[in-house]
Amino acid sequence: MAGNTIGQIFRVTTFGESHGLALGCIVDGCPPGLDITEADLYVDLDRRRPGTSKYTTQRREADEVTFLSGIFEGQTTGTSIGMIIKNTDQQSQDYLKIKDRFRPGHADYTYHQKYGLRDYRGGGRASARETAMRVAAGAIAKKYLKQEYGIEVRAYMSQMGDITINQTDWGQTKQNFFFCTDANKLDALDALIRQLKKDGDSIGAKITVIVKNVPVGLGEPVFDRLDADLAHALMSINAVKGVEIGDGFNVVNQRGSEHRDELTPKGFKTNHAGGVLGGISSGQDIIAHLALKPTSSITIPSETVNVDGETVDIITRGRHDPCVGIRAVPIAEAMVAIVLLDHALRHRAQNAGVKTKTPKI
Amino acid sequence: MAGNTIGQIFRVTTFGESHGLALGCIVDGCPPGLDITEADLYVDLDRRRPGTSKYTTQRREADEVTFLSGIFEGQTTGTSIGMIIKNTDQQSQDYLKIKDRFRPGHADYTYHQKYGLRDYRGGGRASARETAMRVAAGAIAKKYLKQEYGIEVRAYMSQMGDITINQTDWGQTKQNFFFCTDANKLDALDALIRQLKKDGDSIGAKITVIVKNVPVGLGEPVFDRLDADLAHALMSINAVKGVEIGDGFNVVNQRGSEHRDELTPKGFKTNHAGGVLGGISSGQDIIAHLALKPTSSITIPSETVNVDGETVDIITRGRHDPCVGIRAVPIAEAMVAIVLLDHALRHRAQNAGVKTKTPKI
Amino acid sequence: MAGNTIGQIFRVTTFGESHGLALGCIVDGCPPGLDITEADLYVDLDRRRPGTSKYTTQRREADEVTFLSGIFEGQTTGTSIGMIIKNTDQQSQDYLKIKDRFRPGHADYTYHQKYGLRDYRGGGRASARETAMRVAAGAIAKKYLKQEYGIEVRAYMSQMGDITINQTDWGQTKQNFFFCTDANKLDALDALIRQLKKDGDSIGAKITVIVKNVPVGLGEPVFDRLDADLAHALMSINAVKGVEIGDGFNVVNQRGSEHRDELTPKGFKTNHAGGVLGGISSGQDIIAHLALKPTSSITIPSETVNVDGETVDIITRGRHDPCVGIRAVPIAEAMVAIVLLDHALRHRAQNAGVKTKTPKI
Amino acid sequence: MAGNTIGQIFRVTTFGESHGLALGCIVDGCPPGLDITEADLYVDLDRRRPGTSKYTTQRREADEVTFLSGIFEGQTTGTSIGMIIKNTDQQSQDYLKIKDRFRPGHADYTYHQKYGLRDYRGGGRASARETAMRVAAGAIAKKYLKQEYGIEVRAYMSQMGDITINQTDWGQTKQNFFFCTDANKLDALDALIRQLKKDGDSIGAKITVIVKNVPVGLGEPVFDRLDADLAHALMSINAVKGVEIGDGFNVVNQRGSEHRDELTPKGFKTNHAGGVLGGISSGQDIIAHLALKPTSSITIPSETVNVDGETVDIITRGRHDPCVGIRAVPIAEAMVAIVLLDHALRHRAQNAGVKTKTPKI
Repeated sequence: MAGNTIGQIFRVTTFGESHGLALGCIVDGCPPGLDITEADLYVDLDRRRPGTSKYTTQRREADEVTFLSGIFEGQTTGTSIGMIIKNTDQQSQDYLKIKDRFRPGHADYTYHQKYGLRDYRGGGRASARETAMRVAAGAIAKKYLKQEYGIEVRAYMSQMGDITINQTDWGQTKQNFFFCTDANKLDALDALIRQLKKDGDSIGAKITVIVKNVPVGLGEPVFDRLDADLAHALMSINAVKGVEIGDGFNVVNQRGSEHRDELTPKGFKTNHAGGVLGGISSGQDIIAHLALKPTSSITIPSETVNVDGETVDIITRGRHDPCVGIRAVPIAEAMVAIVLLDHALRHRAQNAGVKTKTPKI
Repeated sequence: MAGNTIGQIFRVTTFGESHGLALGCIVDGCPPGLDITEADLYVDLDRRRPGTSKYTTQRREADEVTFLSGIFEGQTTGTSIGMIIKNTDQQSQDYLKIKDRFRPGHADYTYHQKYGLRDYRGGGRASARETAMRVAAGAIAKKYLKQEYGIEVRAYMSQMGDITINQTDWGQTKQNFFFCTDANKLDALDALIRQLKKDGDSIGAKITVIVKNVPVGLGEPVFDRLDADLAHALMSINAVKGVEIGDGFNVVNQRGSEHRDELTPKGFKTNHAGGVLGGISSGQDIIAHLALKPTSSITIPSETVNVDGETVDIITRGRHDPCVGIRAVPIAEAMVAIVLLDHALRHRAQNAGVKTKTPKI
Repeated sequence: MAGNTIGQIFRVTTFGESHGLALGCIVDGCPPGLDITEADLYVDLDRRRPGTSKYTTQRREADEVTFLSGIFEGQTTGTSIGMIIKNTDQQSQDYLKIKDRFRPGHADYTYHQKYGLRDYRGGGRASARETAMRVAAGAIAKKYLKQEYGIEVRAYMSQMGDITINQTDWGQTKQNFFFCTDANKLDALDALIRQLKKDGDSIGAKITVIVKNVPVGLGEPVFDRLDADLAHALMSINAVKGVEIGDGFNVVNQRGSEHRDELTPKGFKTNHAGGVLGGISSGQDIIAHLALKPTSSITIPSETVNVDGETVDIITRGRHDPCVGIRAVPIAEAMVAIVLLDHALRHRAQNAGVKTKTPKI
Repeated sequence: MAGNTIGQIFRVTTFGESHGLALGCIVDGCPPGLDITEADLYVDLDRRRPGTSKYTTQRREADEVTFLSGIFEGQTTGTSIGMIIKNTDQQSQDYLKIKDRFRPGHADYTYHQKYGLRDYRGGGRASARETAMRVAAGAIAKKYLKQEYGIEVRAYMSQMGDITINQTDWGQTKQNFFFCTDANKLDALDALIRQLKKDGDSIGAKITVIVKNVPVGLGEPVFDRLDADLAHALMSINAVKGVEIGDGFNVVNQRGSEHRDELTPKGFKTNHAGGVLGGISSGQDIIAHLALKPTSSITIPSETVNVDGETVDIITRGRHDPCVGIRAVPIAEAMVAIVLLDHALRHRAQNAGVKTKTPKI
């Protein structure tokens, strides 16, 4: 109820502030018998971690994860999996000077007014540091999805500022720090980041998630549609301001004759829907896009108010990304994986054993 | 779990198919003592109802709602409110010819594969007819929000095809069938609808929701952010393919110095955020946009497969809207109202009595 | 949240007051393809209904149930099942004289203080009339459990006042109005009821539920143990004041060497545990007992207070059972069936496909 | 869904096995601004801990709790509270010899069959060690209840074997290891324990919980009644086989004229109901009883089967309590406190501001 849990059957509950002792989460409902080690989580944790490139924040978060329960002799036991990541690189004193000032574009003011007090160090619970646990939990979901269904969840940065990137080569995403699929765009991206650093400014980004090998039938009418739950999960990522499924906002100016994806025995002719029809997966690739705002943690001074309601100036120094969107790629994958596994298990609960003579197209 | 419920404290659970005996819902968790009659629901039910204009489907759904419980002597009692709307204008035989064919762009194929059987009449559970109950439940939420907090939830159609509409005059939305705020655009909208009818085609639309007088503090970290729950609720509406909060996808090409909304003692200078910071309402207007796809129920024939997996042709005759987006205006308002009331009650549960010396800006 | 829902995957949400227009419920999460008609529900609805014998209340509740959704051509579709039972025999004027007085032993005072207002007619939402929908929903659960797993849920009245009844002959429960398994006790039961009627008084009862053919493995650690969920469901029945699993309170004076049920390849030697170990079904019969208080609706006058807090007298005339426990037999079965089906589906979600070399004992 | 969470608004999710690295839990939904330190938890953690007396198990569990989040400068912040207790005294090798044998009366067989594998060390997730986190979370709930409402949750051991104990002196419970309120019974209890140790056997116990200063109005119709949720919470404690509210099973042989608690302007005349009417607190003391079975971990050999389904003998050596009921006293208090706080917050959500002219009696 208090909002730190996602999922119904595959459930992830997280805790932890930016500058507390540790982040942690409980993954409940993971099927038993899945081979898993901490190493399985590091692939994605490393992709998310700041300080792994010159483009992202220079804070060093070790992100060393420890399983505390739910795994025995290398396998999930079916009971709740507890894990933590200790916070090691905490420079809390950086934040003393802004403890009484609300940073524009941040959750400082809203947390303060909601709770009457707040952990001001580094954004506290509202810090993107929290997403480390999403990535850790998502890695477990990804592994199960891959192993049990062959499902592959991948994302890339499809736009930064006005630089758009096509999904040309997945392999590229492992070779650059932008999760960029098109090597031809790297110079432009690099130039933009350099300019932003020079300006002390930041920029937004768009991430595209593509899921392959999704079985038909995942998603529940009418509120817990697969696309609705994806929208929820993706919009819950820090800084996200928009989510699209399939053609997204382009549908506003499409005609029905253009949009509808015709069915043939060999499959759908097109995929404007993005793999979801009536809230239920169609077996096509699931395609989702998300828009991330430019971070407000920039060195250009701004006006704000303090806890007494007085006008003050503020500069957010610190070690921040000029583009938080870059790091959101593995986070978006994690959220999509969590939603998909949850829906796969929900589907199994109610519909296990359902058969139809109709072949999967 | 099975997905027909939305909300945590203010909970709405719906049932009903397009051509069953009745639609219904249970509204649980409504505070006691709210004056409410069926008449309070008709305002929005009438706005949603097809057949109220030449532009929308000519099916006549009486939408006569009956309260079965939870209301005593004109007031909510705090117990579960049951209500139904009987289906009266059912021409099920229209659907016999397509019972074994999957309409492209519809949920026919996915429901069939998920459940092994389906009520093929008029889309069954996947029909937009289901949204009548959302509007009914939303009307209760709206009334409570207005009375208790002064909150006003309003929406208008901000784009249809390539015709964009600015929010110039709320009064206009009651004078035309497009929920259009700008009288100057009515001729263009009218011409587009006529053309579509002639072509036997359909078009997408964009709806904008604006909520006034929202208290600061609604929304829960980290998954049940207010914006995440709004995205879930709006994406759960039939045909929606995208949701934006505030500047939405425009943030991709914004700079931090432009996007961040500076705070002053007299309020925020701008509202790029759309009224939500860190997932919690800031007290500014909440602004959300949603994109609705063009309906696939058009008279231009298309290819599809039947339940045996064979290629067949299909034409979706019937009485369908060339633009389903028009009717989505009151539905979007209802979903936003349901989410807001739920979060207002959730906030009250945990944070009642919280005080801060900081004035609301 | 507001409490009118039970179950996680197989979910039942109810509404309705004693003297409102109708009772109703939504059954969500029922697997698709189950053959079901209203007639399947009447067996148990008739067993629960007052006025079916000289021993139970003479109010005539027709209990005619109507499916409004979720069932198509005689089969569940997997979508939410809506159903209602109209209230036909409402003598609301009976209650006018006690509208401002709180009946002792009833929920009048607590509802009034909780909500600030209440539907005083016949107990309103707190009336046992509400249990009709539990029985209706339970009948669906029972049918699925029987068909899919062979599970049989049965109950009988094991004690009324000081008359104890052994489970000697299930067939007997269909031949008498006491759900009594032992024909030799009928005269004593009859005599007791006659005496109570003469005295204008009432008596408590104990019900025993026995479930056969339960698969091993249902129930979840650590809070949603099968026995904990059974306790919740049974204690939620009107008038229940105690729940036992297996040996129940007798364990207080048992030794470990006596209580522990030893395992052999041919099965457990004993069943002190009542079929649940560590919160998970062991494959043995599940045995539960519940205690129901004597109804407070008796004709012996009592003292109470009115809404102004003044001392007043009260007599609860009307048509009431001298022993409400009798009617609780099918209600208890229904609640147990709902819990079992919910757990069977939950088990399937997470553990489908789990295999072990260990034979079921 | 997977069962490791309890509560709706005040939510506790736990993890941890007997012999894993650590136990932990997340407390979500705690109101902000509550002063809390680890020391507040030690009072009850110490009462629960084995090895604190000659009568309870000699394992030494340090039970040192660490807050990882949700508390800042000594106050709850309203965000999720993460905490862990490291396991330090793990003698896992003790369990190697029984890893393939199912201990009678334990969850070994059911876990093995449910999950296909299990952490056999010390009961794994099914170990009573898990209850340490319940007590930790319960201590937070207790503090808030006390401070905000003056509610006091206390329990004592009301029976062990055939020795019954009246609630004569709460102060006594702090002076002896039996949580016994009557000093006159200490010799008998002591003698019974000595005899059991000599016999290598164990005994059951009964615990009574009494809650003072409960406001009227907590609890929700119809399934989430306060008594139903208490029954759920108490039955979820290891070894509990029965739960009673108020007069419990004694009501079976009570008459309505005796059971009903008459109301007067100065309060109820009696409290047969145990403080709950219609599932809602009446403002009287809440009284609940629970029965705990004798532990099966005794040194008298028994028959069982192994993972191959063959008959084998088993002796459960180790350091076990002859009466697990003793330690259940603080656990029962914790569970009741968690349920009460959850319902207090739920009540606040929906009914904040409800007023009635009727005085609290």
